[in-house]
Amino acid sequence: MAQPVRLGVIGFGNVGKAFARMLLARQTELKSLGLRFVITGIFTARHGHVIDRKGIDLQRALAAGNLWEIRRRGSAIAGLEFVRTCPADILVEVSSLNPFNGEPALGYVKEALARSLSVVTANKGPIAYAYPRLVELAARHHCRILFESTVLDGCPLFSLVRETLPTTHIIGFRGILNSTSNLVLQKIEEGMSMKRAIAYAQEIGIAETNASYDLDGYDAQLKTSILVQVLLGERLTPSQITRGGIGHLSESEIRAAARRGRHYHLVSTARRKSGGVDASVEVHLLPRTDRLSLISGTSNGIILETDTLQTLTISEENPGPDQTAYGVLADCIRLSGSLPKARSKE
Amino acid sequence: MAQPVRLGVIGFGNVGKAFARMLLARQTELKSLGLRFVITGIFTARHGHVIDRKGIDLQRALAAGNLWEIRRRGSAIAGLEFVRTCPADILVEVSSLNPFNGEPALGYVKEALARSLSVVTANKGPIAYAYPRLVELAARHHCRILFESTVLDGCPLFSLVRETLPTTHIIGFRGILNSTSNLVLQKIEEGMSMKRAIAYAQEIGIAETNASYDLDGYDAQLKTSILVQVLLGERLTPSQITRGGIGHLSESEIRAAARRGRHYHLVSTARRKSGGVDASVEVHLLPRTDRLSLISGTSNGIILETDTLQTLTISEENPGPDQTAYGVLADCIRLSGSLPKARSKE
Repeated sequence: MAQPVRLGVIGFGNVGKAFARMLLARQTELKSLGLRFVITGIFTARHGHVIDRKGIDLQRALAAGNLWEIRRRGSAIAGLEFVRTCPADILVEVSSLNPFNGEPALGYVKEALARSLSVVTANKGPIAYAYPRLVELAARHHCRILFESTVLDGCPLFSLVRETLPTTHIIGFRGILNSTSNLVLQKIEEGMSMKRAIAYAQEIGIAETNASYDLDGYDAQLKTSILVQVLLGERLTPSQITRGGIGHLSESEIRAAARRGRHYHLVSTARRKSGGVDASVEVHLLPRTDRLSLISGTSNGIILETDTLQTLTISEENPGPDQTAYGVLADCIRLSGSLPKARSKE
Repeated sequence: MAQPVRLGVIGFGNVGKAFARMLLARQTELKSLGLRFVITGIFTARHGHVIDRKGIDLQRALAAGNLWEIRRRGSAIAGLEFVRTCPADILVEVSSLNPFNGEPALGYVKEALARSLSVVTANKGPIAYAYPRLVELAARHHCRILFESTVLDGCPLFSLVRETLPTTHIIGFRGILNSTSNLVLQKIEEGMSMKRAIAYAQEIGIAETNASYDLDGYDAQLKTSILVQVLLGERLTPSQITRGGIGHLSESEIRAAARRGRHYHLVSTARRKSGGVDASVEVHLLPRTDRLSLISGTSNGIILETDTLQTLTISEENPGPDQTAYGVLADCIRLSGSLPKARSKE
């Protein structure tokens, strides 16, 4: 059996907890890969932190109301100090998003990479705002950063492109990336008011408290920026992407279109052009024959245009925190095969 | 620059030629991966063969009516002798399919593996009829066999499952795997007679000369058998899979359903059950809300049911020989990273 891979986790909300549960549930599968993960630290902004170099008892951490309950000694620390002191091989950053500059997560991620600590994150902010810098930092310090769960939850989109499409260039894409907008539009078609539909999306835990973030396209803009940077290799920050939202549509307009067999969707689009990439998040009226039109509920999906396979469509049905957590776990497994030797032999 | 990877190719029809053209067209991309492929031999059943340890001039081979024209000396040989004598690191088997027992391709593949020669094949026969034996043979002789293009053309389905979904179990799938049946049904909906629709599918080069092979579900049965064996790990030979076809449907029945918003498709289905797997190829009447119902033209696609991501859908639009050839190239690239050392340093 290999040495355990030590994980320092920042964030212990829906995704962090789902990740901890998944580590417990998938021990047999991990063992069959010769892997054992231990969480040696958890840091949260509002519910305390805990560090235990022998591995935290995850059952207890999941059952506890906050992390103070399970910490034996020591006083509160800041996130950066956690990154510096938690004995870990991988930093798992799953704190909640700051959509405007990616902080403080970006700072944690940079600190980790600068210390040759590989990073897995589900947090869109750091990647959208600093992808090239983070990749450069990781290369310089002989470590890696993976972020499968930032777009399409745990659906292996980045892995698909990186690991299964050698020599292929991505020319462009069209995708439905924001679950809340898509669900709200569907519920309005089915007869709900927009207000009620938004409340419903919040009730089931997929919408942000500030509904504008989803409905006015900010979330999709961040995701589109990530895809353009990673898949098309072009530096477009979120604010450089044309942004529209569904807020200006009226309920009657949405329902009238549906009766004519056409459906509103918030669609992210990007395409290479000479000297750059055109990218936007906009409301499109799609016929039922469009592959994206079948992305319903909280599902999301993307159509990749390539120079080898024409178009390739990949979509995931009704993902939730468990699927995001799976993407994080899959990234941790990928990194475990390529940890810096000094660390993995520690 | 690494040593060139030498490829012996069996079959030089649509796929073999598309593969040769792709090797020429993608030299820059391959070079950036540190790879150079040379084809050191091509064998065909009816148009001769050529072996040249320095690498065949592919431009000339593509322009020639047959391979006798470009061979300088030597007499006709049998396929097995070609496998034994062609100086190669990978055998690329893209000959045409024998749907009933996979021969003679199966014999070539076995001979190659037994000689520690890794194999890439787009040929369904050997995999459907002998997958476990071939994997065992490859393991025993320290080489590998890959077959991405046997199902869904070049769409990276097997790579997706193998390389991007660690610890995930595939519980079942539903897919549209036979392009001809799907296209014929669509053309009938659009007003063509079945006879004319079949002729059309043959004209555009996707249907077998013996239309029954596609329309009566034999092709889908082979592909379903491959998926069940590879993705679900259960040994089900083609004949153990319930097989239906579209031949018994009447044109009026197909059009009447379409007017009601429901569409006939030939669907491959498999699902784990206690002690095994249920698998079938059958005509299903799908509503427009079913993701598979949007697989049109010669496209194909599959919905995977997993224990980590709920369902994951992947589909490819209107693939042809170029896409199949890409799947073969991608497999060759994968194998190039793991060739037996003795061979790759030869």
